[in-house]
Amino acid sequence: MSTQFSSFQPPIRTLMGPGPSDVHPRILEATSRSTIGHLDPEFIRMMDEVKVMLQQAFLTNNALTMPISAPGSAGMEACFVNLVEAGDKVIVCRNGVFGERMRHNVERCGATAIMVDDEWGNPVDPTKVEDALKAHPDTKIVAFVHAETSTGALSDAKTLCALAQQYNCLSIVDAVTSFAGCELRVDDWGIDAIYSGSQKCLSCLPGISPVSFSEKATEVIANRKTPVQSWFLDMSLIMGYWGSSNNAGKKRSYHHTAPVNSLYALHESLVMLHEEGLENTWKRHHDTHLLLRAGLEELGFEYIGQNGARLNQLNAVKVPEGVDEAAMRSALLNEYNLEIGGGLGALAGKVVRIGLMGHSARKENVALCLAALKDVIK
Amino acid sequence: MSTQFSSFQPPIRTLMGPGPSDVHPRILEATSRSTIGHLDPEFIRMMDEVKVMLQQAFLTNNALTMPISAPGSAGMEACFVNLVEAGDKVIVCRNGVFGERMRHNVERCGATAIMVDDEWGNPVDPTKVEDALKAHPDTKIVAFVHAETSTGALSDAKTLCALAQQYNCLSIVDAVTSFAGCELRVDDWGIDAIYSGSQKCLSCLPGISPVSFSEKATEVIANRKTPVQSWFLDMSLIMGYWGSSNNAGKKRSYHHTAPVNSLYALHESLVMLHEEGLENTWKRHHDTHLLLRAGLEELGFEYIGQNGARLNQLNAVKVPEGVDEAAMRSALLNEYNLEIGGGLGALAGKVVRIGLMGHSARKENVALCLAALKDVIK
Repeated sequence: MSTQFSSFQPPIRTLMGPGPSDVHPRILEATSRSTIGHLDPEFIRMMDEVKVMLQQAFLTNNALTMPISAPGSAGMEACFVNLVEAGDKVIVCRNGVFGERMRHNVERCGATAIMVDDEWGNPVDPTKVEDALKAHPDTKIVAFVHAETSTGALSDAKTLCALAQQYNCLSIVDAVTSFAGCELRVDDWGIDAIYSGSQKCLSCLPGISPVSFSEKATEVIANRKTPVQSWFLDMSLIMGYWGSSNNAGKKRSYHHTAPVNSLYALHESLVMLHEEGLENTWKRHHDTHLLLRAGLEELGFEYIGQNGARLNQLNAVKVPEGVDEAAMRSALLNEYNLEIGGGLGALAGKVVRIGLMGHSARKENVALCLAALKDVIK
Repeated sequence: MSTQFSSFQPPIRTLMGPGPSDVHPRILEATSRSTIGHLDPEFIRMMDEVKVMLQQAFLTNNALTMPISAPGSAGMEACFVNLVEAGDKVIVCRNGVFGERMRHNVERCGATAIMVDDEWGNPVDPTKVEDALKAHPDTKIVAFVHAETSTGALSDAKTLCALAQQYNCLSIVDAVTSFAGCELRVDDWGIDAIYSGSQKCLSCLPGISPVSFSEKATEVIANRKTPVQSWFLDMSLIMGYWGSSNNAGKKRSYHHTAPVNSLYALHESLVMLHEEGLENTWKRHHDTHLLLRAGLEELGFEYIGQNGARLNQLNAVKVPEGVDEAAMRSALLNEYNLEIGGGLGALAGKVVRIGLMGHSARKENVALCLAALKDVIK
């Protein structure tokens, strides 16, 4: 071992990109608490609290509600590999990067993805989805992204899930960016499978993906013809460790080693959400968005996408004429320690994405962001 | 939200089970440092250091060496889903719980597992492996567990990998418990794919799985006939984010959001390994094992398995006649805040597993463990 290495001391940034968002010091402190075993009775007790708090945050009574021990992309995969089997048909709505990722998931299950496309920046059009459902009556699942992190578009999850139910389909909803940042009602809206990420509006550390499955979805998993192609993400095995109403009172069995300290952090973030109140949290995101929006428009930034279908927590705006997008973001990072996001895919270089998620959704962050932007684009 | 929830304050335990092991305060502190973006230039620089330090710890020059953003079970799955395709034949050595898990992985890839069984507690018998290789000349991969966490058996990875090479097979090695705890030489021994966990002899937080693939394995991945069934674990996508010699100098592209703070912890644990020196770390595990072993034998605990093929870092011993295994472990936990492990699978209730991994491999831990055991079995 020749090269010398030393501890990594990260710079102190303000995180206003598409996630991770600013992590509250309480959550950072929680993650550094002393590690205990993943089968310790005290840890199991904490897991039970995490499950209940997740149910409350998802507004669901789903017994199968728990965090997947990996990032949101793994949460997405958990929903698809458990519900989709080879030969199935899945309607996938694509209005940004994450709809396309859903397609890859479907196809890697050996299933067929029926794509319903909307322009990037726009929400999913329910009329097109209904047309696809009529054209493909053997569809098993409708999958869509509630809050497209790549464009800032908010789709009408309630209407889309009602459509899925009307045509006897299950729904899979990507709530990575919407969860805890805007209205989301799993039971009221009839969502069958949903996944999110810890690092967005929960303001927790990145690396964990809360998921929830309805009773109907749980039955579909129980009645699969083939084993789930992923051992790590097989919900029938994971629920043996996390517990569900199906095994209440039974001993928890070892599946994988849970990311103990990351779950301390998730627990703390849910306690904080609980303290603030879910609807207050939604309102805070909205209020902060209005402030940012007014300031951005004053600076000459124009939002992409449709009026009325824009997210509070992810603001995708066009880069003003004559401004070099990459140089602008570098200046924000280097001069102000402020991170905002670039465009993804087709929008790379054309838009920036400003996140107001969780602890980042504060007036002081908006003030800093607007002042810094004003300086670097002058 | 009716029930009241409050911050979780874990008890302070001494962790001498099969993992997680005691986490050094330096690592706990590192994980609580301020979160930065997963594409921040400073974070990318840290990632590069993690890669180099992992190469040094694996004793490999493999360009495709990086941590998977999920626990060891996902590291196992990453090795199998990337290298195995439907219709392949894989020889799987089974001498404990984790060989059986490998079989599940192989079969979920649509491949055939040729099982080579050895008694639980014993190492893998190379003669049986060679017989299987002769009987199945179309075998693609030989897979085995270097250090069986469920039994404490150490298998001869060098000989087994040489056999795989001799018969033109790739090797997949489970090094979850061996990595950084005993001799392990990826390049010298010709290992093609290897995975470990952060929460064992690295003494890091649970949740991350270091992996490494040889050039030969990387070529096999590049020349697959079918896509990898997991999007999240597809190495050809992951290396776009983590970088490899194949894309040196290229811009890192977004794949998933890395578990930023868990990687701070991994970085710190590797810096500490670097400071102590790899061979010194192996020796510390061995020296501590000798101390524990003498004490356990004096107390009447008998090791399972073959003399000469036992791990330093995981001591599986029979519960003395007349002692209730579960009651003994509960007493250790409740009276001494000391966690040791129970038996898994066929060994449940019959053995206990005492870990001496990473920061747990210290004289003070041995002294505490022996004194506490002496008290609770009296």
